[in-house]
Amino acid sequence: MSSQKPPSSAGNNLDPWYANYAERTAGLAASEVRALFAVASRPEVVSLAGGMPAVSALPQELVIESMNRVMREQGSVALQYGSGQGVPVLREQILDVMAMEGIRASADDVVVTTGSQHALELVTKLFIDPGDVVLAEGPSYVTAMVIFRSFQAETHHVAMDANGMIPESLRENIARLKALGKKIKFLYTIPSFQNPAGVTLSWERRLEVLQIAKENGILVLEDNPYGLLHFDAPPPPALRSVEQEGVIYLGTFSKTLAPGFRVGWALAPHAIREKLILANEAAVLSPSSFSQLVISEYLDTIDWRAQVDRFRGVYRERKEAMIGALTEYLPNLQWTDPDGGFYVWLTLPSYLDSKQMLPRAVKELVAYTPGTAFYADGGGRNNIRLSFCYPTPEAIRVGIRRLQNVINGELDLLETFSATGPLGTARDRNFSAPPPNLD
Amino acid sequence: MSSQKPPSSAGNNLDPWYANYAERTAGLAASEVRALFAVASRPEVVSLAGGMPAVSALPQELVIESMNRVMREQGSVALQYGSGQGVPVLREQILDVMAMEGIRASADDVVVTTGSQHALELVTKLFIDPGDVVLAEGPSYVTAMVIFRSFQAETHHVAMDANGMIPESLRENIARLKALGKKIKFLYTIPSFQNPAGVTLSWERRLEVLQIAKENGILVLEDNPYGLLHFDAPPPPALRSVEQEGVIYLGTFSKTLAPGFRVGWALAPHAIREKLILANEAAVLSPSSFSQLVISEYLDTIDWRAQVDRFRGVYRERKEAMIGALTEYLPNLQWTDPDGGFYVWLTLPSYLDSKQMLPRAVKELVAYTPGTAFYADGGGRNNIRLSFCYPTPEAIRVGIRRLQNVINGELDLLETFSATGPLGTARDRNFSAPPPNLD
Repeated sequence: MSSQKPPSSAGNNLDPWYANYAERTAGLAASEVRALFAVASRPEVVSLAGGMPAVSALPQELVIESMNRVMREQGSVALQYGSGQGVPVLREQILDVMAMEGIRASADDVVVTTGSQHALELVTKLFIDPGDVVLAEGPSYVTAMVIFRSFQAETHHVAMDANGMIPESLRENIARLKALGKKIKFLYTIPSFQNPAGVTLSWERRLEVLQIAKENGILVLEDNPYGLLHFDAPPPPALRSVEQEGVIYLGTFSKTLAPGFRVGWALAPHAIREKLILANEAAVLSPSSFSQLVISEYLDTIDWRAQVDRFRGVYRERKEAMIGALTEYLPNLQWTDPDGGFYVWLTLPSYLDSKQMLPRAVKELVAYTPGTAFYADGGGRNNIRLSFCYPTPEAIRVGIRRLQNVINGELDLLETFSATGPLGTARDRNFSAPPPNLD
Repeated sequence: MSSQKPPSSAGNNLDPWYANYAERTAGLAASEVRALFAVASRPEVVSLAGGMPAVSALPQELVIESMNRVMREQGSVALQYGSGQGVPVLREQILDVMAMEGIRASADDVVVTTGSQHALELVTKLFIDPGDVVLAEGPSYVTAMVIFRSFQAETHHVAMDANGMIPESLRENIARLKALGKKIKFLYTIPSFQNPAGVTLSWERRLEVLQIAKENGILVLEDNPYGLLHFDAPPPPALRSVEQEGVIYLGTFSKTLAPGFRVGWALAPHAIREKLILANEAAVLSPSSFSQLVISEYLDTIDWRAQVDRFRGVYRERKEAMIGALTEYLPNLQWTDPDGGFYVWLTLPSYLDSKQMLPRAVKELVAYTPGTAFYADGGGRNNIRLSFCYPTPEAIRVGIRRLQNVINGELDLLETFSATGPLGTARDRNFSAPPPNLD
């Protein structure tokens, strides 16, 4: 165990309980994304920061009808405690959802959780001792890494390119960490429309990554919130469709229905599933019966596949608005062009710092998430995650236009305070020509 | 850290991930209460085992109206992610609920959680390192102790009598554990209508317990699910009403409204509250917006105090049915006679083992929770927790009548297999006369 104590940011002498916290609590610092949620809630700010789904695209009348039927027909069940594993009929329906990504499973191995976030917390609680290692794509989902840190895991990053995680980087990381005597407990991956990078792991690489994990006895934690939200062709089948014993699969209704119910699930190998149920019961006794039954009723009576299609259309339009605006306003920067999901990953010139730039952005009424939030090792300084899920196409265009102003302003500042001008000295090697639109 | 490994009951060679679990996972074994839930679900069994509230006493039409108003007026908020601390207006309303127990606080210090169970998990995560100590009444709430064990805490019990926790036992425990070099992280207590003992901490003792905790720098975790469910006079004011900086107070809507929404809360000293929010965000991002808004609407538009009165009437009637049946069918045993809450604690002759007796009870179509479930140290062998919250008064009478048969059957068995008869040899010293009804 490490000897770390809560740093001054996590407590101080004004807190009489300062000396009493667990060691793990030192890892619970407020994330950059969290501070942004407060900023982004001001209506005049175009927020390209959060990951809120477009729930306005959901036909609320149909949801209301589902609720009323549940209350009238199963009210006393909906209002009561349920099982720690979740409502059986919903677990059966979850099999239908996962079948769309090639997964065949038994409802016996599904555990319903309070959003897939809680499945992530429970899996981490089950597997991580202090000092254990989690491998994750670099960049990776910020609140997953907060959980890993909160259980005193080290997160090490596997490099990515346009086809997702690079198998060679995975091999190198494993060899290096094993040589250091580290215990690698699992590989956390978002293979489809990754958060934040927007890229998708190719089919060939899925097979290779699974093979590497198997050879090294490493459990794979496949987090798949966006897989059904593809804009054209679906992504390759889920990792879990290939490998059953070595993969814990996490799914959610937050993106295909609505996050306000907090219903997600884990599909786990049998022995792990057993422990997940116990951990779930300890944590919350049972997930909300009411939420589960409403979702079950919705899946049973509404053409939910057509609704997922509607969501796809909404997000496709917003993604196109964002890529169009980036092409128009920031043509010399690099960005990913996702085939689904919620996010574009933008690369600034290496001499810009997206976190330092954020206060100026907020002043210009646009918010984003700085790239450093998505790295456990300080990477991502000149990256930005742009979310297109929540704002309208018009707002997205306004936001990117404002972002252009912000970046221009930063470059002006650098010009002013550098005798030779930054463009001649600190040029990003991936950024070959002077950016005409940034002068 | 201990060197314990998952025992055979928590994993085996058929589980390929057996060697990969965290040390804490060894503590996650299925509880006795859990196995009972399956049994108790058979309709022919009278279950005096679970803790399910009587949601049938809730006017479902009013709940449906609240839901519909929420969806029509705030649908897009209800369906979306919310804040990790909870909906502000609900946190204000929670102040009104707590005011009924003498608590004055700021909504700023309230954190809404997925049932108060999850507040318990989060507080434990924040404070417990492996080997730390939690003090709790003996007996205590089973799933609290499951959480403590799942974070590798040791639970030590403070003795109780009819007036709740005995201050002298608290002092002795603290002195003994400090002499052993143990870190006591908090005192977990259910001061009003305790689960499972049914007793209430007197006002004088509340002050004394708080004083002892303060003198020794021990945080108090006050769990108060039943405080408003008193049958006659209310219990003494909450511990939190006396002491602010040294108490984390846990409340819930599971008993005064319905558990199916999974909404509870923690009221914590300011610095701890800050960390609770971060832990809550890591675990579930935000508690269910929908559930919170429905409860907020219910509190705003319905005479919820009158509904709590209705619940009190329902539980008072059931408690009286249980005490009446115990007096009639098992007059020579000892039991507690609670002034509120859900539970009666029954003491059998010391030579009976309530866990061994359980299969016979299930065969006779009555279920209960064996006393050992409520002790971390093997205590409670000849105790039983009887719940009167869920079954009707008629079912309660039938259940206690069946329990009489079960106990008689056990005594017959002991007579048969003991040459001299158990009544002459193994008599409980608290059980002064031969029980005529048990021959």
